[in-house]
Amino acid sequence: MIIETQSVRFDSFTVETGATLAPVDVAYQTYGQLNDDRSNAILILHAFSGDAHAAGISRDGKPGWWDNMIGPGKGFDTDKYFVISSNVIGGCKGTTGPSSINPATGQPYAMTFPGITIRDMVRLQCKLIDYLGISKLLAVAGGSMGGMQALEWAVTFPDRTAACLPIASTARHSAMQIAFNEVGRQAVMADPDWNAGNYYGTKPPGRGLSVARMVGHITYMSDESMREKFGRKLREREVPSYDFSADFEVESYLRYRGSQFVDRFDANSYLYITKAMDYFDLSLGYPSLATSLERAQCRFLVISFTSDWLYPTYQSLETVNALRSRNRDVAYCELPSNYGHDAFLVEVGEQTELVRGFLSQTLKEIRRR
Amino acid sequence: MIIETQSVRFDSFTVETGATLAPVDVAYQTYGQLNDDRSNAILILHAFSGDAHAAGISRDGKPGWWDNMIGPGKGFDTDKYFVISSNVIGGCKGTTGPSSINPATGQPYAMTFPGITIRDMVRLQCKLIDYLGISKLLAVAGGSMGGMQALEWAVTFPDRTAACLPIASTARHSAMQIAFNEVGRQAVMADPDWNAGNYYGTKPPGRGLSVARMVGHITYMSDESMREKFGRKLREREVPSYDFSADFEVESYLRYRGSQFVDRFDANSYLYITKAMDYFDLSLGYPSLATSLERAQCRFLVISFTSDWLYPTYQSLETVNALRSRNRDVAYCELPSNYGHDAFLVEVGEQTELVRGFLSQTLKEIRRR
Repeated sequence: MIIETQSVRFDSFTVETGATLAPVDVAYQTYGQLNDDRSNAILILHAFSGDAHAAGISRDGKPGWWDNMIGPGKGFDTDKYFVISSNVIGGCKGTTGPSSINPATGQPYAMTFPGITIRDMVRLQCKLIDYLGISKLLAVAGGSMGGMQALEWAVTFPDRTAACLPIASTARHSAMQIAFNEVGRQAVMADPDWNAGNYYGTKPPGRGLSVARMVGHITYMSDESMREKFGRKLREREVPSYDFSADFEVESYLRYRGSQFVDRFDANSYLYITKAMDYFDLSLGYPSLATSLERAQCRFLVISFTSDWLYPTYQSLETVNALRSRNRDVAYCELPSNYGHDAFLVEVGEQTELVRGFLSQTLKEIRRR
Repeated sequence: MIIETQSVRFDSFTVETGATLAPVDVAYQTYGQLNDDRSNAILILHAFSGDAHAAGISRDGKPGWWDNMIGPGKGFDTDKYFVISSNVIGGCKGTTGPSSINPATGQPYAMTFPGITIRDMVRLQCKLIDYLGISKLLAVAGGSMGGMQALEWAVTFPDRTAACLPIASTARHSAMQIAFNEVGRQAVMADPDWNAGNYYGTKPPGRGLSVARMVGHITYMSDESMREKFGRKLREREVPSYDFSADFEVESYLRYRGSQFVDRFDANSYLYITKAMDYFDLSLGYPSLATSLERAQCRFLVISFTSDWLYPTYQSLETVNALRSRNRDVAYCELPSNYGHDAFLVEVGEQTELVRGFLSQTLKEIRRR
């Protein structure tokens, strides 16, 4: 089934820092049918470079980024649930971001776009949910940055969701996570074509953005998965070149993924969204993480993966322990995987079982009340 | 004591790929006194960005990179041993490398410099040892790329050293190690100032080299050491800037270390030396790693560190297991540390004990024969 991206325009939206964007567009997709009492809606939250196209096949033939988890009979079963996915604010896939035209100037916002936060992403999603006429979501779910949004939903809108599924994620970015993001930003900003963000209509900072993405890709894999996938295999040659072409398969893979990313992502969105992740600290403004999570009223399913060194298990446990200390309903699973952080996108089997059971149970508990 | 860097010029040196450099200079330092039977010489091998200045204080007041391990009464005790340290071929600290003048053209070699290998580094060091009149070293020792050179010494010149100490190292670079190096190279080569390597006398590719070094620094630390050192601490401010300045201390630290590196290292050397590391595979040309290490006749002390995820313990164990399978004399220690790969430079206490004991025992065994 071909999935179309829809769009809704809101007159204005004021971000946490106080700046107002007017108007704001939100790109979204939906899968499945909203039931009569509007109680079966699930909001899927995308990771850093994701978009609204989470499931199904787009007009140009591409499957959604979590198509293995969302669909008829899948983990997020669209025969039962109405699933919504939208592009985040600051993004470049239909929701207003730095590459959007600022009506006040007729030019792209570029670096005049206001700084954004994970909470801004969630607050704009809430406007979308209001617009769709849904007063309470059955669940919010996402991996990586999607998990941060899920946690923010549970705390900022405690009466608007019955369940929260943060996967391969964290309640606050660590120094190492900030460090890797900062390297990516510096790579983008070091590219003269970045031109202080004013590259629209000219050459985008492709070399810098490509290097940034290469770093990202390494952190999404694991030492073991790279060893299994590439090892020391040479590419289309028997002996090393001793020049600086891509001798090893891992080199050509990274170069390819880097250059591919340039065609599909906006460099300024890269800067704004990574900063939003780095600013994310659910405990900010509270005495502790536990007191912030105490606001949450929903059920939690927290999942991490053994080989994920970018969002390690200890970060998920920090969330779980904080929730438990406030007697919140939380289930936690660490799933075995060699795929590193990418596991949340590829380890379908066990995630499907966990998600399916958790959502059924949530539905049962809602009906019991 | 002020240590001076010395230099020796060899008429020519032919690298593994067949190219001949003429002449070749080698920068080196020595500490302590060579004894009468010339049996107390230890060759120290530097890591990627190191140089000949391993110990003591230079004329400009800087301590050597392993000064905490080399000196009177230290692990490599210069009251007992004659310690030698030289800059590697391809480097930029006095030994011939891409920034050196090619006498045939009167211009820097730049990218006409031949591709080099860890074995080339070691073969040139052997010329230095010959020149110093030492037929057999007591030991070769180094961390990281220094450990690769140590292993190469044991296999390429089995009758020229009595002991080998590879620390926080590997017998072959893994896909992940190659991947991180490739990101650094792409960052350098993406900088227009790199200009295909022809930047001498003009502006060096400082932005690219700085980004490359930032990536490197993250991989030298550990998640835990970064959490302890930086956490989410903001820099000289109470609230985030929401601009793209260095909000977090870890950001300003990395930016500083990146820019500092540009002042002291040559970008083309960065390319050549990282490639040499990536090409390193001690088993190349042999049926297995064990058969290559079977050539070695010396004693081994292999050390790794618990939090070193760049050169993880399993790589040291691969070397140890290969040596054991051929009944070679090998001691192995995994030392506890939070410092990640940097541990070999900062964990002085236990390393000192291990090195001191191992060297004494080696000396005893030599005298017993």
